[in-house]
Amino acid sequence: MSDRVLRINMTTGTSVFEPVPDAWAGLGGRGLTSTIIAGEVPPTCHALGSNNKLVLAPGLLSGTRAANSGRLSAGAKSPLTGTIKESNAGGTAARMLALMGIKAIIIEGRPEEKKMFGIHIARDKVRIVETDLGGSGNFAVVEKIVAEEGGKSGVLSIGPAGEMLMPSANISVKDPQGRVRSLGRGGLGAVMGSKKIKYIAIDPADAPGLTYADEASFKEAARVFAKALTDHPVSGEGLPTYGTNVLLNVLHEAGGLPTRNFRTGSFDGHEGISGETMHARIEERGGEGRVRHACHPGCLIQCSQVYPDKDGKVMASGFEYESVWSMGANCGIDDLDALAEADHILDDIGVDTVEFGVSIGVAMEAGILAFGDAAGMLRILKEDLSRGTPLGRLVGAGAECLGKVYGVRRVPTVKGQAIPAYDPRSVKGMGITYATSTMGADHTAGYTVTSNILNVGGTVDPLKKEGQVELSRNLQIATAAIDSTGLCLFVAFPVLDIPEAFNAVVDMLNARFGLSLTGDDVSSLGASILKTEREFNRKAGFNEAADRLPEFFSEEILPPHNTIWDFTDAEMDAFWDF
Amino acid sequence: MSDRVLRINMTTGTSVFEPVPDAWAGLGGRGLTSTIIAGEVPPTCHALGSNNKLVLAPGLLSGTRAANSGRLSAGAKSPLTGTIKESNAGGTAARMLALMGIKAIIIEGRPEEKKMFGIHIARDKVRIVETDLGGSGNFAVVEKIVAEEGGKSGVLSIGPAGEMLMPSANISVKDPQGRVRSLGRGGLGAVMGSKKIKYIAIDPADAPGLTYADEASFKEAARVFAKALTDHPVSGEGLPTYGTNVLLNVLHEAGGLPTRNFRTGSFDGHEGISGETMHARIEERGGEGRVRHACHPGCLIQCSQVYPDKDGKVMASGFEYESVWSMGANCGIDDLDALAEADHILDDIGVDTVEFGVSIGVAMEAGILAFGDAAGMLRILKEDLSRGTPLGRLVGAGAECLGKVYGVRRVPTVKGQAIPAYDPRSVKGMGITYATSTMGADHTAGYTVTSNILNVGGTVDPLKKEGQVELSRNLQIATAAIDSTGLCLFVAFPVLDIPEAFNAVVDMLNARFGLSLTGDDVSSLGASILKTEREFNRKAGFNEAADRLPEFFSEEILPPHNTIWDFTDAEMDAFWDF
Repeated sequence: MSDRVLRINMTTGTSVFEPVPDAWAGLGGRGLTSTIIAGEVPPTCHALGSNNKLVLAPGLLSGTRAANSGRLSAGAKSPLTGTIKESNAGGTAARMLALMGIKAIIIEGRPEEKKMFGIHIARDKVRIVETDLGGSGNFAVVEKIVAEEGGKSGVLSIGPAGEMLMPSANISVKDPQGRVRSLGRGGLGAVMGSKKIKYIAIDPADAPGLTYADEASFKEAARVFAKALTDHPVSGEGLPTYGTNVLLNVLHEAGGLPTRNFRTGSFDGHEGISGETMHARIEERGGEGRVRHACHPGCLIQCSQVYPDKDGKVMASGFEYESVWSMGANCGIDDLDALAEADHILDDIGVDTVEFGVSIGVAMEAGILAFGDAAGMLRILKEDLSRGTPLGRLVGAGAECLGKVYGVRRVPTVKGQAIPAYDPRSVKGMGITYATSTMGADHTAGYTVTSNILNVGGTVDPLKKEGQVELSRNLQIATAAIDSTGLCLFVAFPVLDIPEAFNAVVDMLNARFGLSLTGDDVSSLGASILKTEREFNRKAGFNEAADRLPEFFSEEILPPHNTIWDFTDAEMDAFWDF
Repeated sequence: MSDRVLRINMTTGTSVFEPVPDAWAGLGGRGLTSTIIAGEVPPTCHALGSNNKLVLAPGLLSGTRAANSGRLSAGAKSPLTGTIKESNAGGTAARMLALMGIKAIIIEGRPEEKKMFGIHIARDKVRIVETDLGGSGNFAVVEKIVAEEGGKSGVLSIGPAGEMLMPSANISVKDPQGRVRSLGRGGLGAVMGSKKIKYIAIDPADAPGLTYADEASFKEAARVFAKALTDHPVSGEGLPTYGTNVLLNVLHEAGGLPTRNFRTGSFDGHEGISGETMHARIEERGGEGRVRHACHPGCLIQCSQVYPDKDGKVMASGFEYESVWSMGANCGIDDLDALAEADHILDDIGVDTVEFGVSIGVAMEAGILAFGDAAGMLRILKEDLSRGTPLGRLVGAGAECLGKVYGVRRVPTVKGQAIPAYDPRSVKGMGITYATSTMGADHTAGYTVTSNILNVGGTVDPLKKEGQVELSRNLQIATAAIDSTGLCLFVAFPVLDIPEAFNAVVDMLNARFGLSLTGDDVSSLGASILKTEREFNRKAGFNEAADRLPEFFSEEILPPHNTIWDFTDAEMDAFWDF
């Protein structure tokens, strides 16, 4: 059975399976979502209007036996940034769609009714039904669909934030345990909400499965790839043991941990919220806590942590470094339990934790609450954000909007999206990535922390300018390609350090599709995706002057290294010389 | 005595009179503010940061005996739009500065202290003093300065909105009666607030006055110019009798009056708020009401109206069409007294009435209050905007921000600034002006209502595309020049229709400065100003795709003419072919 594209029109309430156009054949994940958005969405359209589209696409290797290949990409014009946007996450949906032969779901139009709808996708049948789940949190949605459709169903959903069209609203995807992962950044949950889709339920029964052009070669390449993942110290040990929050102490020590809205690069309360503390508390509290937890089937890294409360009940699942940082160090809060409580609520109402934490940091800068006020943050979360009060809406609109409304000068955003957990003044490669990414500030777009901090894939001094543009460029190109495979970005650690791992990825693509790609072809794919995305942004109104960091990074010296952002415009623009 | 530039540094609290650089010699008003901003302000700076500057400049003819030459320009990078910005108003300050030989005031830097300051400018002396007027409304500021410095003082001030750094905050300037006019658009009050300047008091005593290269010729040209102003039916009769609000019924009849957030082009409640009704009520209530009122000395048009309450006390002064429209038809409100009350409060707290009314229209679209709810609008104004609650801050941030926060698709803004009182679908020349203006949506930038509606300067069918780009281009070029002279834009009515009037303006410039400019030179000046402004915007991050109207104008048909916005991108971009 050939792969298909499922096109759903929410204006008419109709759907159709279409053959895959030849031009899309070699594309998956981000490569496919960005190609479709760039090809079908008018760049100056309103992101919440009927001309925007929401595209969901598993990666090229999703559904295969390749380890860590279960990422699902979502693409649209972003209501947060106004740029093209791709966001990806684990969970169970990517594998299901791949095995069902659905290469992409394109959701277009929007209904005029004030109702919410659910979409049920089975092998050859799509049903669009009215739902009374409007207003429910993501956990209740997953619970109800599991109760009605069985535990094997895939679920994508939005919480109240997406229904309220908040620019920081995310899309949740059910994980193997029935909890949720987040397609976090850029407000794609609001795009889904604008189309009045509360959930998409996937029934994987009778999926035709997928075929390999050369199954034996695939198996061998997948074995080499899996071995590299478990052999590398970061993916094989650091991440599994401490989760992504292993980075908190590392960045604190490196002086690159943005603290109290990017005032310093180290946090005096780091011990309270570090990966080591989280690990110890999970072990000590036991119960439903889990140190190693896979966010999608086939994950060997298992960096997701399930954090229990004092009674051993799940408090937060998928409790990541970026969330701990944004609401913790960035807000001067060192109470890990408070962060876990907030993380869980954000997962339920469906809001990006990075954007939320940075917005709260800006609210603290504005004097709405004090740095370190964990109770105040939880109060805003419960009484304002969840309920959609004016203040809650403002926080949900993201850091840039909040900063504009309160006249704040220190607003850490690029193209309207909050800067994540690495200060660009002391992890300078990340500054280049934030400034130039087609997505607005995004750490995953070109994660120079590898060579800047972790000595993976070489070493580039994080405090100096030398080599940062090239490093970010190479990683952004490679990442665009990896984001197209369905592989988790954390495979980059072995891929950057172990030549066999990189070759194995190319070999898997060739064995799966009967191709003879080289490593250069994969790089070309990545470069081509970036250029497609940039051209969309240009047509949406962004020129090179939008590829800049906020002014205060060039004016305020960052302790403890007393560094500053010192790239010239020409140096930043040289990023695009490829 | 030669003209001087007064440069005030608010970081150091110092000031200096400087000679006028040669390059600025032939510039005044907007030409001067835009040249200085483009030359001295980094385009990507934060508009509220220390690198932005606030420039105040009287026009080239300000201070002379030329009628209607008392406009003061203010320029800065706008916190509302992120573009370059010039806003001008009447009042008494422009004439005073011109007579004191102050060609421009450049205010730079910002103090770190949380205090507010007042600046006292006398002939050769500048004092920067701490003030306890922080939190006061503009009327109280003017009253106090008049009490302390005498009624002849000039005053520029900001209200609480400017102190709160609201992107819609304006700068007030004292009028001949001690009431205020507004440098309204683009949030220049927030720039003044960011520099902690509550007021600027001008002591005109001992002003050296100005000289004429050829006084006799100037007198003669000024006489011809004045005669044209009083002879033309619009400036000589329509505007004096009914004020700018004469336009309300005209636009209603033309189907170009944006109603209920741009849903229709005519308003069923138009009679309640028309210029004719306003006129009758002023006559009927009497008391302090005034039909003909000059906003600055030497004004012959006297279109400003003083609207009295039932007891004859002043309720609103300078009660303009754009304000009546924005809060009236645009919000479905037909209660003129409610609009007057709102107008007065907005003048006092210092908020642009256009941005406020359009923001309330968007709030109504979002369901925060109902269309037609005058009491609700006044409640938000008094309890939220004035006090800076989260909702008040949101409204004060302008329509685009409010729309983003509430997920509204129908948000009438261009480059972040609210579209004013002429629907671009049925007054198509205005659509070209809104889209292409360097200032964001701005009716004054190229007021095609002249030929589109009033048959002044020729006739161009408002419902058709033909001729609109050329019309807007010619008017935007001419306006940039007029905005440099200090002449009120309403002189355009006779200037466009009466050749002698245009020649008289050129003659006055020549006679004042001993030049031999031609009409073409004046056009070249206008074109050059536009290009300087556009280049600033390009460097600030805006490309041609920012020169677009919101999508809904191209999708929703506007009754009663059932017109739509149908210009292609290429047609709009052709505006810049000069």
